This record gives sequence, C-alpha cells and structure tokens, in this order.
Amino acid sequence: MGNIVWIPILGLMGMVFALGTYLLLLKADEGNQKMREIASEIHNGAMVFLKREYQIILIFVAVVFAVISWFISVYTGFAFLLGALCSMLAGFFGMEAATRSSTRTCQGAIDGKMPLALTIAFMGGSVMGISVAAIGVVGLGLVFLFTRDPQIISGFALGASSVALFARVGGGIYTKSADVGTDLVGKIEAGIPEDDPRNPGVIADNVGDCVGDTAGMGADLFESYVGSVIAAIAIGATLANPLKWITLPLIFITIGLLASLVGIFSIHIFKRLNPQSALRYTTYVSGIVFIIGAYFASMIVGGRLNEFWAIITGLITGVLIGIESEYFTSGNPIKEIAKSSQSGAATTMITGLAVGFESTILPVVTIAIAIPIAYAFSGIYGIALTAVGMLSIIGVVMSTDSYGPIADNAGGIAQMAKLDPEVRKITDKLDALGNTTAAIGKGFAIGSAALTALALFSAYQHAVRLSSIDLTRPLPVVGLLLGALMPFVIAALTMKAVGRAAYKMVDEIRRQFKSIAGLLEGKAKPDTGRCIDIVTQGALKEMILPGLLAVILPLVVGLILGTEALGGFLAGATVCGVLLGIMMTNGGAAFDNAKKWIEEGNLGGKGTPTHAAAIVGDTVGDPFKDTTGPSMNILIKLMAIISLVFAPVFVTYSPLIMGFLRSIIK
Amino acid sequence: MGNIVWIPILGLMGMVFALGTYLLLLKADEGNQKMREIASEIHNGAMVFLKREYQIILIFVAVVFAVISWFISVYTGFAFLLGALCSMLAGFFGMEAATRSSTRTCQGAIDGKMPLALTIAFMGGSVMGISVAAIGVVGLGLVFLFTRDPQIISGFALGASSVALFARVGGGIYTKSADVGTDLVGKIEAGIPEDDPRNPGVIADNVGDCVGDTAGMGADLFESYVGSVIAAIAIGATLANPLKWITLPLIFITIGLLASLVGIFSIHIFKRLNPQSALRYTTYVSGIVFIIGAYFASMIVGGRLNEFWAIITGLITGVLIGIESEYFTSGNPIKEIAKSSQSGAATTMITGLAVGFESTILPVVTIAIAIPIAYAFSGIYGIALTAVGMLSIIGVVMSTDSYGPIADNAGGIAQMAKLDPEVRKITDKLDALGNTTAAIGKGFAIGSAALTALALFSAYQHAVRLSSIDLTRPLPVVGLLLGALMPFVIAALTMKAVGRAAYKMVDEIRRQFKSIAGLLEGKAKPDTGRCIDIVTQGALKEMILPGLLAVILPLVVGLILGTEALGGFLAGATVCGVLLGIMMTNGGAAFDNAKKWIEEGNLGGKGTPTHAAAIVGDTVGDPFKDTTGPSMNILIKLMAIISLVFAPVFVTYSPLIMGFLRSIIK
Repeated sequence: MGNIVWIPILGLMGMVFALGTYLLLLKADEGNQKMREIASEIHNGAMVFLKREYQIILIFVAVVFAVISWFISVYTGFAFLLGALCSMLAGFFGMEAATRSSTRTCQGAIDGKMPLALTIAFMGGSVMGISVAAIGVVGLGLVFLFTRDPQIISGFALGASSVALFARVGGGIYTKSADVGTDLVGKIEAGIPEDDPRNPGVIADNVGDCVGDTAGMGADLFESYVGSVIAAIAIGATLANPLKWITLPLIFITIGLLASLVGIFSIHIFKRLNPQSALRYTTYVSGIVFIIGAYFASMIVGGRLNEFWAIITGLITGVLIGIESEYFTSGNPIKEIAKSSQSGAATTMITGLAVGFESTILPVVTIAIAIPIAYAFSGIYGIALTAVGMLSIIGVVMSTDSYGPIADNAGGIAQMAKLDPEVRKITDKLDALGNTTAAIGKGFAIGSAALTALALFSAYQHAVRLSSIDLTRPLPVVGLLLGALMPFVIAALTMKAVGRAAYKMVDEIRRQFKSIAGLLEGKAKPDTGRCIDIVTQGALKEMILPGLLAVILPLVVGLILGTEALGGFLAGATVCGVLLGIMMTNGGAAFDNAKKWIEEGNLGGKGTPTHAAAIVGDTVGDPFKDTTGPSMNILIKLMAIISLVFAPVFVTYSPLIMGFLRSIIK
Repeated sequence: MGNIVWIPILGLMGMVFALGTYLLLLKADEGNQKMREIASEIHNGAMVFLKREYQIILIFVAVVFAVISWFISVYTGFAFLLGALCSMLAGFFGMEAATRSSTRTCQGAIDGKMPLALTIAFMGGSVMGISVAAIGVVGLGLVFLFTRDPQIISGFALGASSVALFARVGGGIYTKSADVGTDLVGKIEAGIPEDDPRNPGVIADNVGDCVGDTAGMGADLFESYVGSVIAAIAIGATLANPLKWITLPLIFITIGLLASLVGIFSIHIFKRLNPQSALRYTTYVSGIVFIIGAYFASMIVGGRLNEFWAIITGLITGVLIGIESEYFTSGNPIKEIAKSSQSGAATTMITGLAVGFESTILPVVTIAIAIPIAYAFSGIYGIALTAVGMLSIIGVVMSTDSYGPIADNAGGIAQMAKLDPEVRKITDKLDALGNTTAAIGKGFAIGSAALTALALFSAYQHAVRLSSIDLTRPLPVVGLLLGALMPFVIAALTMKAVGRAAYKMVDEIRRQFKSIAGLLEGKAKPDTGRCIDIVTQGALKEMILPGLLAVILPLVVGLILGTEALGGFLAGATVCGVLLGIMMTNGGAAFDNAKKWIEEGNLGGKGTPTHAAAIVGDTVGDPFKDTTGPSMNILIKLMAIISLVFAPVFVTYSPLIMGFLRSIIK
C-alpha cells in the first residue's frame, strides 16, 4: 500500500475532466446581445465579490500561516496554505462555470428544449461538483505523499475551513442583505417588480445566489470532505498497522471521485427522462459504482468488511437525512404553515418555528443510531468513516445541488431579456426541482458537518492524548456550557449582520433613485456596480467578529481551562450547533416553500392577506436558511479543526497557564 | 446537630405567618358589588382550572406512586406523595390569596392611594412567597426527621417536580391559548376592546394570568427550591461527617425563610417610598439578614466559611442573572426591536430573535464563572450550595414576583367596573413595575433551574456511582445528542399546543357570538364558564405528550443505553434547555416591552404600521415567554430528578438489559 502516488494522479485526471466540461460548456451558444450583457454583469459582480473576499482571506491566511509556523511547524503552515488555496481554486472554478452557464441554459431551452437546458445546467453545476472532489483528492494526496504525519495533514483541513468561514458566513450575509435590501426599496417603496432592470440592486441580488448557494455551499462541503478524511487519517494513525488505515480513507474518496464522474457522465443517457428522475438516476449510478468499489477496497486493503459497513452506514445516514429534510421542507409541514398564515403573520411565525424545531428530531435520531452502529463495526475509526462515506460521492451530490442556482439565474435572465414565455416555463420547471435538490443538499451539508465535527472531535482527543472528557468534573461542564453558547452567539451576530448590511444597501438604492434622473422611467441606467461594492464590503466587514470568535475562543478555552474543558466545549458546540443549524435551515426552507405553495394558487393565492403573512415568514426564513443555519456547519467544524491543529500548543502551554492561574487563586 | 426538630417547627411558624397574612387580607374592603362580581368570576375560574388540574395530577401521582413503591421503596413513594401534596398546597394557597387580592388592591387605591394599594398587592403576593418557602421547609424537615436516607428524600423532589410539570407546562399552555384565542375573535374579528365584558373569553384570559404567572411560577420555584436542597443533601451524604453536611442546607433555607419574613414585614416601613424602591429595599433587608445568619450557620455547623462563600456565590449569581434579564427586556434592546418594526413585521421578528439569542450570553457566562468558584470553595457540594444560596430568600423574591399579576388583574377590574380613572393610573403604575419584577423573576427562575439541574446532575452521578461520564466514548455522546434534542422537541410540542388549544377557544367564542342573541349589544351575558372549561381541557390534554416524554425518555435512555449515557443525556438537555429557555423567555419579554414602548407614544405610537408590526412580535413572544421558555425550566429539573429517584432501578436493571442487547447484536 506504500505507493499511493496514483491517488493524486487520479485526482488530477478528475481536474482535467472538470476543465474539459468547462471548455465544452463555453462552446455552447450564449444567446443574444441582451442575454450576454446581463450574464456578464452577473459574472463580473460575482468576480468582484470573490476578488474582495480573497483579498481579505489572503491577509487572514498570512497571519494564521505565521502563527502556525511559529508555534507548531512550518510544514503544518504550508499544508494550511495549500488547503486554503485548494478551496479557493475550487470556489473560483465553480463560480466561473456557474455564472457562465445561466445564459447558455436559457439558449439551450430555446434550441433544444428541456433535455438540452437540463444538460447544460447540470454540466455547469458539475464543474463545481467535480472540482470540489478532484481538488480535494489531489490536495490531500499530495500532502500525504510528502508527509505521513497526521498533524501536518490537519493543517490542510484548517486551510479549507478558513476559506469556508469566509465563503459561507460572508457569502451568507451577502446574499441575504442583497436580497432583503433590494426588495425593501424596489418592491415595497418604489413598487417595481422583482428582477426589474431599473432596480440598482437587482444584479447584486442575482450575484448573491451564486455567492451563497454555489461558492458558499462548495466551500462548506469541501471543508466537510477534507475534514472527514483528515479525522479518519488522524484516528487511523493511532491504530495498529497505521499505514493501512490512513491510506484507506484516501482510497475511498478516490473511488468516490471516479464513481461521481461515471454518474455525471450518465446524464447524457438519462437526459430525455423527466429532470427529477434524470438527476436521481445519476446519483444512483454513482452510489452503486461507489459501493462496489468500496467493497473491494475494504477487502483488499483492510482484509475485512467492517470498514465497508461503516462507509455504508454513512451513505445511508446521508440519504436518510436528505429525505427527512425534503419532507419537512416540502411535505405536510409547509401546508400547515400556509394554513396558519390565514390568521396572520404571528401564527405563521409560531407554526414555522415549531416546524423548524420538529424537523430536528429525525435527523438527530438518525445520527444517534448511526454512531453506535459505526462504532460496533470499527470503533472511533468507524465513526470517522461514516462521515467519509456520506461525503464520498460529493462530486455528483454537489453537481445536482449547484445546478439549482444556475436554473434560477437562467429564469432571471429570461425575464430580464424578455424571451419567449416558453423559455421561462422550462427554466421554472428546472428551478422548482432545484429547490428540492437545494433542500436535500442543505440537509446533506448539516448532516455531514455533524458527522465530520464528531470525527474531528475524536481526532482532537487523540491528538491531545485525553484519556477522558469527564462531565462529572466541573471544568468540562463549564466547557460544555460555553461551547453550547457559541451557536447562540453566532446566531445573534449573523442575524443582526444581515439587517445592518441590508440597510446600507437600502440607503444606496434610495440615493440612486433620487440622484439619477430618469432612472425610474427606464431612461437612465442604474449604477449596479456600486451596489455590489457596498453589499460586498458590508458582508465582509460583518463576518469579521463572528469569524474571529470562532477562531479565537477555542484557543482561549484550551489554554486557560485546559484540553479536557476544550473537549467539553467542542461537544457542546457540536450538539447545539447541529440542532440550531437543522432547525434554522429546515425552518427557513419550510417558510419559503409555504409561501410558494400559496403562490401556486392555494388558499387564495397571491395578493391575499394569507400570502402577505406567508411573505413575513419567508423574509424571516431567508437569513435562517441562507445565513445563520449554514454558519452553524462552519462553526462546529472550524472550532474542531482549530483545536486539532493547535493540539501541540495546548499540550505544551495549557498546563503552564493553568498552573499559574491556580497559584494566583491560592 | 442531631436534633433538628426545630426546622419543621420554624417552617410551621412560617405557614402560620402566611395564614395570618391571608386572614388579614380577607379583612380588607373588597369594594362595590360590581367589583366583587368580577373578582369572584376570576376566582371561580381559577379554581375550576386548579380542580381539573389537580384531578389529573392525582391520577398521575397515583400511578407514579405505585411504580416507585414497587420498583424502589414504599418510603420513597410516600416521600413522593408528600412532595406532590406540599406543592399543590402551596399552589392552592397562593392562588386563593392572589385571586382575592386584586379587587382589594383596587379598593385600596381608592381609600389609601398608592401606599395602601402597594401594601395589599404585595401582601397578596407574599402569601404565595411565604407558602412556597415555609411549606418547603416543613416538608423537607419532616421527611428528613423520619428518615435520613437521601434516596427517600429525593422522592419528595420528584413529587414537587410532577406538580410543577402540570402547573408550569399546562398552565403555560392555558394562559397563552386563552390570551390568543380571546384576542383573535374579540379584538380582531368582533372589533371590541380588550377586557370587554361582552367577550366570552375575557374571564378565561384573566384567569390565565393567575394560572400561569402565580401558580405556574410558584410550582416552578418550589421545585427548584426543593430540588437544590435535595441535591445538596444527596451530595453531602457522600462526604465525611455526612450528618453535618446534610443538615446544613436545611439550616440555610430555614434562615432564608426567617430572613424573608423580616423583609416582607419591612414593607410597612417602606410603603411611603416609591413602589420600586419599596420592593427593592424589602429584598435588600432579607438579603442582609440572610447573609448574617448564613455566616454564623457556616461557622457553627461547618466550622469554616467555605460553605458560606459558596452560598454567597449563588446569591450574587441570582442577582446578576436578574439584572441581565432586566437589561435585555427593558434596556436598549427593546428600542432596537421597536425601531426595526418600522420596516415591517419581518424585521421585528429578525431583530427580536437576535436579541433573544444575544441575551443568553451574559447569564451563561455568569453561571460558567460561578461553577468553578463554588467548586474551589467546597467541591461538587459547593455547586449544589450555589443553587441553595440563590433560592434561599425565595420567600421575598416570589412575593415581589407574584404581586405583578395581582396589580395586573386589579387594573382589569378597575376597567371592567368603570372606576375613577385615577384608580387605573395607580394600578397601571404598579403593573408596569410588575412587568420588571416579572422579568427579573423569570431570569431568576431559569437561572435557579440551571443551577438546580446541575446540582441534581451531580447528585445523580453519586447515586448511580458513576466514576465518569466520558465523552470520548460513543454512548455518552449519543446520550448528549439525544438529551440536547429534548428541549427542541418540547419547544415544537408546546408551541403547536398553544395554537391548537387557542383554536378551540376561537370556535367557542364565535359560536357564542352567533348563538347568544344580544350578546354583542351588551344585552345578554356570555357563558364565560364554558370558555374556561374548554381552554382548561385543551391545555391539560396538550400537556400530556410533552409531560410523558419528559418522564419516560430518561428511563428509556438509562435502561437501554446505560447510566453513563443517561449522564450525557442530562448534560445535553441541561445546557440546551438553559440556552433555549433564556433565549425564549428574554426574547419574548423583549418583544412584549418593545410593543409597550411604542404604545407609550414612541415612533408614532398606537395604530401605526410600526405598532402593528410590533404586535406580531408580541404575539409570537407570548408563547415564547409564558409557555415554551418556562417549560424548559421544568424539563431539565424533572428529567434530572427522575434519573436521581430511579437510580437504584438503573443500577440493577440497566446492566442486564444492555448485556441482553449486546448478546443480540453479537
């Protein structure tokens, strides 16, 4: 098993495949002049955001690189750098493809109806999907090739996590402030419809969809993907025959990458079916190929099937959490919310919040059942493998997920470019399906974050050589309490952040309506770039405080209260973060879909007081599902990775600091 | 220290004092015919609810008594019975006094202006306050006199907890369904003002204030009071010189009772000051008397001051949490919510929820600091003593808290009986102050619940002889996850319950408006009794499922996953329950006060769209602060006490069941 040079090579093959898909995509017809203009504005806006974001990330990365190199080792520092660069590369690549696909999807709907539109949108999404998987395999493979030290490899995960923090939290604040700000002035004050080109914020709003749903989700899942593998490697390194167990997760994800490629390629066979079945079958194909491959890998590398079953447990857990999320965001619960809207916004809110709370039950019970099963098969290592199993076919899962925003944007372009209503019908159908895949994707993201955080939590225990995290002692209880507090703090900060950033946007749009003569009459052009700029700056500024807290507090707890208390801290943050994350993500999506269900003509349809009440729910649900909820995924993983990477520092300094504090008290 | 017969005797003295206060109260003038009629309707309605509730409680108590007697011991069973009876007695006594005080407070405002009205309202509240403290001292003292076995004494706490479950959760559902149901039909559909006697639900609504704020809060704090003492006794029994350490908490609360009596009596000195200062000084007097007494008790009984300092830590923690709650429910945060209402109900909700999340930070940090301090003074025993210290002067704290609903009802009576507007002014001033004391009281309730649950959690570990609850092992992690899920489940159930029970009320009020001729014209009388009946039945039915879950799930976890996993379960439930409880209680109160601040004329005042948005926030905040939030207090204490009482069962059966399950898996 020593020679694993083929792992990064296969990963590189995946990257070539992604590049090929991208080049093929560029060849597709991008439509008329008007369509190209709009698409290029969205593309440029997204790139403005990415550029700004990456500038801040680079400063952050430089500081952390220096700290790691000084306190831990320069090798870990370089692994960290590589992790950050890989995540940025995947994000950049995915965004490039996504923003260039929308207009081509539109034109595809004109030229080849549904099958061509579906294929193009899915291909656009698959660039992100394959990039995430392939770049992960290459990066991990390379770090592993040059060093077999799990401590150094964990630096790679911290790099991925740092980028995810900015992409997910910053992106989440961006997308919702742009959305809320644009609607508040455009729809409510000026009385012009959504996606109206006279509104200076409309491009920023469309950019937000890419920034949040594509780049944010990609970085989030990339972090989970890398984190789960690294947790498995760190735990595997402590077992007998370590080389075998630290190679196995890398082999699993490489098989997963190949399986994803097969699945993605199979869309060409299924594209004439209805889109829902087509997307489902591609995922099935990948799943089956992966299961067969994982079976042989387990037998050949491990010499037994225990690890195979742990992987299968993870796959099933992922599928179940996806289905459970789908039910709570599209089944009876959304009708319940819609019906309660008949007695006003207050009852909408009460029912929607209750649905959010309720939707935590099944996923958490699913995870609680998966843990002892995986443990029975392969101990703590098995728990880490469930996370790997869940994320193994990320390539295809992420492709079906990122196809959604492409279809959504295609609809916006069809509207703005005044295309044949038939086109909009096709993109609407694709978009509606995108909402379902997005809900499944978000369930998948929080589920994988939970399992990854648990796996990293176990890896942390090994790294600081904890014999126990004992809740019969006071400091771990204090840690647990403070850790559980963290998701509430981040929730408060991110929800307020959306409000503040949105108000800056409101001021700017109002200013333009006042100062640009002829804007409302459609005679002058709005300064959309300035809106993008303002909301970009606002979002990135607002994410600094929550980001710093997530990075610094685990260090403070670990150094002052000790490694055992930090274990309690991570446990508290993980359980509370998972619960709050599921509650907000599902609750928010349920609010959204309740409103859409009314708009389909139920309970009186658009324009009724019932609809107005549902809109209030949807507006509250927006930051729930796109900002605060997903921030929980990042929070729990980032804090666990920070603790893992800084384990050597805690082991050295924490006893000194604690001893010093004790001597003061005495 | 052997002879502690003076403890129940001093407790009895306290009960005599409460009785004397009650008789004195009855002598006060209860006003004219109209006032008496209304007061008697409210009183009868409250008694209908109590009677129904007690009927269900008796069935529940009989079943649990049988189970305990069979599986544990008949002595524990009788202690359980006594605990339940004591709590019911305190609740009944307090409600009797509270419902008879409102009209006398009104008349007091006519005859002796503010000082007399304040004195009567405070005396009315103090019957509940003294009853809770005195009956607690008597009950605990008696059980302790007849048996020195901490296991048996823990049955007493379970009795108190069972009643608290019904009073707090059932009462919480009752008060909010009555409120929401009455307002939905009366104010919105029929367009008649609040507190209008034509509305068939109006008496039920007034009854709800007593049921929720007086009986519910009383049972909640009684449970904390008893639970904290029993946790200290259970831990004290494991130390060297156990008799000394199990007597000390009883001595502390007896001193606290006497200190409360002195404080309550001092209102007669302070009544000419403004009411806010008067209430504050009575609490200060009690605090100082208690501190002096606790100092000597510590020195004489313990021979050192360590326990005194643990008690002081608890007192300070309680005061700080009270102040922190007050800030978030009356300071800048409510203005922030009010201002965000200017852009509609959705921003009201987002800001209010963010304020709720934010308000968890200071109380949790306060508790996190108190734990290691108390531990440094006196180990785990010290942590239990902080809870005792916080609750020691419950007599006076509960008095200032239950005076609020009396003043509130007095205002309602003044309105309905069309008294001189001057009277309403006085009661309004008392009521406004009552809102502040209620917020402090609620902060106090959740803070004491947190410390009590932590203390009971420690007592449980001793009872099942756990050497550790180790989060590096999978089953405790599963326990932690499932425990953390519980508050989310209870939140979902209780929030939906309010909606369902309110709709039954809506149907009934609509029916009466249709079928009773001349009702809306004021020519016929509504059937208020039927409304009370319906909402009583609805509330008690809705509380069965959450109640059963809270009782049964700890047993299931303990038996199937083992005592260590149950430890994790309790820890998860406690941290998540405390956070969600604080978030909802403070968030709800902040919504309420934001609306009131607008109604005072700020931001345009009543009738503006801003006000309408704030009303949406307030309506969502109502079940937050009066149903779901307070239910968390009960949940975390009840599950800890159940685990403590059933400790012998777990120790015997759990290894058998777990062994059986393992053999099946293999």
